[in-house]
Amino acid sequence: MARPIITLTTDYGTSDHLVGVVKGVILTINPEVSIVDITHNVIAHDVLDGALTISQAYRYFPPKTIHMVVVDPSVGTQRRPILVAGDQHYFVAPDNGVLSAIYDQSESLFAWHITSEHYFRQPVSNTFHGRDIFAPVAGWLSKNWQTASFGELIEDFVRFSIPKPKVNGNSIKCVVLKLDNFGNLITNLKGEETPALVAPDAKFTIRAGNAEIKKLLPTFASGTAGEPFAIIGSGGYLELCVNKGNAARVLGIGRGAEVTVELG
Amino acid sequence: MARPIITLTTDYGTSDHLVGVVKGVILTINPEVSIVDITHNVIAHDVLDGALTISQAYRYFPPKTIHMVVVDPSVGTQRRPILVAGDQHYFVAPDNGVLSAIYDQSESLFAWHITSEHYFRQPVSNTFHGRDIFAPVAGWLSKNWQTASFGELIEDFVRFSIPKPKVNGNSIKCVVLKLDNFGNLITNLKGEETPALVAPDAKFTIRAGNAEIKKLLPTFASGTAGEPFAIIGSGGYLELCVNKGNAARVLGIGRGAEVTVELG
Amino acid sequence: MARPIITLTTDYGTSDHLVGVVKGVILTINPEVSIVDITHNVIAHDVLDGALTISQAYRYFPPKTIHMVVVDPSVGTQRRPILVAGDQHYFVAPDNGVLSAIYDQSESLFAWHITSEHYFRQPVSNTFHGRDIFAPVAGWLSKNWQTASFGELIEDFVRFSIPKPKVNGNSIKCVVLKLDNFGNLITNLKGEETPALVAPDAKFTIRAGNAEIKKLLPTFASGTAGEPFAIIGSGGYLELCVNKGNAARVLGIGRGAEVTVELG
Repeated sequence: MARPIITLTTDYGTSDHLVGVVKGVILTINPEVSIVDITHNVIAHDVLDGALTISQAYRYFPPKTIHMVVVDPSVGTQRRPILVAGDQHYFVAPDNGVLSAIYDQSESLFAWHITSEHYFRQPVSNTFHGRDIFAPVAGWLSKNWQTASFGELIEDFVRFSIPKPKVNGNSIKCVVLKLDNFGNLITNLKGEETPALVAPDAKFTIRAGNAEIKKLLPTFASGTAGEPFAIIGSGGYLELCVNKGNAARVLGIGRGAEVTVELG
Repeated sequence: MARPIITLTTDYGTSDHLVGVVKGVILTINPEVSIVDITHNVIAHDVLDGALTISQAYRYFPPKTIHMVVVDPSVGTQRRPILVAGDQHYFVAPDNGVLSAIYDQSESLFAWHITSEHYFRQPVSNTFHGRDIFAPVAGWLSKNWQTASFGELIEDFVRFSIPKPKVNGNSIKCVVLKLDNFGNLITNLKGEETPALVAPDAKFTIRAGNAEIKKLLPTFASGTAGEPFAIIGSGGYLELCVNKGNAARVLGIGRGAEVTVELG
Repeated sequence: MARPIITLTTDYGTSDHLVGVVKGVILTINPEVSIVDITHNVIAHDVLDGALTISQAYRYFPPKTIHMVVVDPSVGTQRRPILVAGDQHYFVAPDNGVLSAIYDQSESLFAWHITSEHYFRQPVSNTFHGRDIFAPVAGWLSKNWQTASFGELIEDFVRFSIPKPKVNGNSIKCVVLKLDNFGNLITNLKGEETPALVAPDAKFTIRAGNAEIKKLLPTFASGTAGEPFAIIGSGGYLELCVNKGNAARVLGIGRGAEVTVELG
């Protein structure tokens, strides 16, 4: 059988000992596991950013991968730790909505409130459940695969809505959900849900910052130097870009900014 | 037998080829090893920051883990490379005190001056012993486990004192040792050594920057928005925090800042 | 047989899901592979920076390592994906010159235009060939080692010249190719090709920024505090440094800056 895989998505950053500690705890329980960082640079305390990140990444891993997702501003309070099985993957996370986009994408779904304290590191701290609860649970799950042993099934897990575009006649109000490493601005508008935008001879105006964009191009390199344009990115969403440039800087906007698409 | 683990703690950063080169050297010697980054963002040249980082992380790894710790401003000079066995772990590092906090935590301890040059990459550079000495020694140790083959036992290894709080009557002068990814300010005061601070109805005033803090809370989330408070963090130390905020920015202080605790 | 190794060198950064996705795709194809990050902080879109990074790192890995190198501003256009075998290593990259320094260092070399689409993830996006072409090809190569199955041999791969120093009598004009994590300025002048500079009693003046440097020292620690000096670094190149300081800040220059060496 292949080595089990545990992925990590957190807002811990990579300058402290935290990520190393989490990996040490996992490897102490199961030295055969393969640990893969998705990112530790989720925006601090930002559950939506964490939800988007894991939802964009998990499905590229093999079935039975265990994803530990920790963006946890309420660590140590009554919020529950949960284990979720959905879409052939496993997720270990705080029950604060950070798996919301996973719930949207899974046809059948099981969630357990993790209560079996014999799996935890003792004493459990109030501030580092990544070390004391989530890493041990991910490690033990990768050995025994006994989801039901971790706690009771629940159905009332916390779930928030990922912001959706608002259509008003020919006008669509979107929002920038993510700024990538190149400065591309990724919106919440799916290309496949907007045929009037992606059709070959579509006419449209995209307003973002103080710019008007009228070009939807197939590749980054087809853009004119310095001029912002639109693209349907690799995740299927409308992105605003500049060829070899930084669209966020050129447009003067960032995450959370409003983008309006006017069709016709 | 489980795959051997080598962890890496350095100030190399992650933008250059240095970390990749170190991993390549290790894997060339022992392809079966599992390499885990603790961090490569130790503050450049800062031996104390390196010492604190490894001391917070190593004990969460399985016994027999090999920890390569390279913060090495004197690379290429007479300072010795050393191999240390303590607290069931191995450490490979320059003899400049970067293992000081390990010495403090180990009951029995052996240290070897690494002199067996046949383990080194040749020629040995004057500026990159991570590649030419420490990675090869870590790699070979993970294969042969023959500590005595690397050199002579020594007892005069370099050791500095981690700064300790100064108690003067009811007043304790502490210092911020670390700023974490969330902006929490981690001091050198251990909660368990300060019962008068952590007792249920303790009265105290913590002065830090231009703020006075009178609350010690159990979780980050119990703080009032924007208001700094104290917590005993996951490493056992007094930390200054702001709920979903950045305490370093709110208090206007950082690493090295003085923090005074007045009891009563 | 040892586990196959795939290294990653990209300009994706580590804050998004991109690197995680690439690793997931590889591990889905070959769960036994060991994936090693060289860096994901190549300067965005900077093919020269990518070329220098991989050329400094690859040879420290074992023979048969597969290096995936993706700095790809022309992703989705006619530029070809290629597979290269040289110097006992394999490389998977866009054909935009990012392997130029590899070609310089390999005695015998084979390059294939990757055209066997049955290896690709379908549909192939226009903007993320790391996920859809390069990761799958690296993954499958680590299983079947059948280079010829990926496409046709080519000889007209893109190759640019790494900037070389210009010698004019006793004057050598160099350029800063890289700024490392410590602020050291790494030039394109090889020590071993400049005996008049590295000889024991050599006299020379190095002009960089507004400073004149007349000292070539063997170690960082032999420098006087705050004063810039020269060193021959671990890669064999002339570097400008400050002991425990940041030479780029002290000299007020960075990548691309001109450095003049006057001998005698």
